[in-house]
Amino acid sequence: MNEMMHGNDIAKVFRELQLEITQSLEAHDGKASFSSDHWDRPEGGGGITMIIDDGRLIQKGGVAFSKVTGEITEAMKTQMGMEGDSFLATGVSIVLHSLHPLNPTIHMNVRYFETNQGKCWFGGGIDLTPMYVDPIAAAQFHKQLKAVCDDFDSTAYAKYKAWADEYFFLPHRNETRGVGGIFFDHLIPASEEAKNSTLNFCLSLGRLFPVIYKNQTLQLHEDPTPEQLEWQAIRRARYVEYNLLFDRGTKFGIVSNGRTESILLSMPPMAKWKYNVVPSEGSPEYQTLLALKKDLAWISFL
Amino acid sequence: MNEMMHGNDIAKVFRELQLEITQSLEAHDGKASFSSDHWDRPEGGGGITMIIDDGRLIQKGGVAFSKVTGEITEAMKTQMGMEGDSFLATGVSIVLHSLHPLNPTIHMNVRYFETNQGKCWFGGGIDLTPMYVDPIAAAQFHKQLKAVCDDFDSTAYAKYKAWADEYFFLPHRNETRGVGGIFFDHLIPASEEAKNSTLNFCLSLGRLFPVIYKNQTLQLHEDPTPEQLEWQAIRRARYVEYNLLFDRGTKFGIVSNGRTESILLSMPPMAKWKYNVVPSEGSPEYQTLLALKKDLAWISFL
Repeated sequence: MNEMMHGNDIAKVFRELQLEITQSLEAHDGKASFSSDHWDRPEGGGGITMIIDDGRLIQKGGVAFSKVTGEITEAMKTQMGMEGDSFLATGVSIVLHSLHPLNPTIHMNVRYFETNQGKCWFGGGIDLTPMYVDPIAAAQFHKQLKAVCDDFDSTAYAKYKAWADEYFFLPHRNETRGVGGIFFDHLIPASEEAKNSTLNFCLSLGRLFPVIYKNQTLQLHEDPTPEQLEWQAIRRARYVEYNLLFDRGTKFGIVSNGRTESILLSMPPMAKWKYNVVPSEGSPEYQTLLALKKDLAWISFL
Repeated sequence: MNEMMHGNDIAKVFRELQLEITQSLEAHDGKASFSSDHWDRPEGGGGITMIIDDGRLIQKGGVAFSKVTGEITEAMKTQMGMEGDSFLATGVSIVLHSLHPLNPTIHMNVRYFETNQGKCWFGGGIDLTPMYVDPIAAAQFHKQLKAVCDDFDSTAYAKYKAWADEYFFLPHRNETRGVGGIFFDHLIPASEEAKNSTLNFCLSLGRLFPVIYKNQTLQLHEDPTPEQLEWQAIRRARYVEYNLLFDRGTKFGIVSNGRTESILLSMPPMAKWKYNVVPSEGSPEYQTLLALKKDLAWISFL
């Protein structure tokens, strides 16, 4: 047991991951830099929320690290099926909202949870939400994810890609949030070796994140059109709907009396709601709606 | 039983109420008019969603009528504690987002529910969400509500005012949504007379709604300042958070496979999220936050 990574060690490498990612993103953005907000949780633990806005590429974004400890409350037992007396939860969460409507919103999360009863698991995911879907860019994104998954487990990509299609889905809109990605939860390692390997998978995903964002952001020299900005605001409203109605991290945060500003870091800078927006057939907006479907084999577009 | 109002009759008077309210609001706005969207629900029933936007006073709003019938599903039994095989639900829901930041957002709802097992109940409420709280205007609003409650039941206002304080509350922000109002649910009439009296109470509230909106909207001749517009967008984001995280009507709508565009009619035209907005002490925005508290005896300000 001594050589096994425990919650506090994993929190330490997650915090290092946060710094690595924010440095990469700053270098890529070239204009804005992150500010850090340290916070304590009265019930135990705390976090460092790193915020960026008004960048060249990133309009609003955050990279949040937290290590939260405490008692497993009745609400957590009944609503989340947890067992034991106390827990440690640590993770890194990212959402970036790009300034230009032709650049995407992107999300990543890796997390680790353990209880005093010796149970532990990992979870995480990355998903990409373009305002305008480019199938080639989506395929490249999935190809990069598959490579990291394959290094961990040859069956992982297919499973986690399907899981993301299910998870990042808005049933009330019958739309996926974007072009998907991967999602996994409750990965319970069966051995010390498996635990290290799962942690390394999470860290590899984290390190891939700035590379993916770089690949997905175009160096755009033309200003967006009013139509593009309008569509961006409408799509951002869908992002809000997803996060507040369905996102498990948001729900867990609100239920567990988490730090509101860090939980809602994922919100876009601005969103618009209009009644019954229906893009005209054949328009780029219409084409995008056609691509917001489950079970598309994005890699096959390459 | 023959003289008792049943679901279909109540739906009919609710539809008439919708027309009465929209005509009043149109006359008051003086610029915009409502358009109507009729829809059918595949599982039974449907509705008429009336939408207004780009008005002189109202930037975006809706007055929705629906009469929905169907089977009581497993989800409704487990998540909403319902019994029986089939139900009829009918109601009128309103949310108006005013154009000027010195004019409020306002919400009203009256609803009726019955099952094939002979159970029925009423629910409803009105609450006012000013971007900038004016205690005198809030007091006048509460006085009008109290008068209608007193006609129904002398104990109603105190109970329903306290219920609204509990219900229109954002725990993650430790803020009320606005200056409250009244809220009531599951009012099960004990007799035919009680049923008529409860229905009349709901109708009186509905008829009061345009009067309240008229009283609460100032005829503003100066354009809003950028600071006021920014604050309006921030407060509207709180409205979104409330509706998607906590509002029971929204949850019921999403769970029962309701009509998304009608459920989300309550969304503001635009909302902004910024990290950790803290108004400077003594500013009008700061004063407003101080007023977003439960258990304020608004009427005593008069």
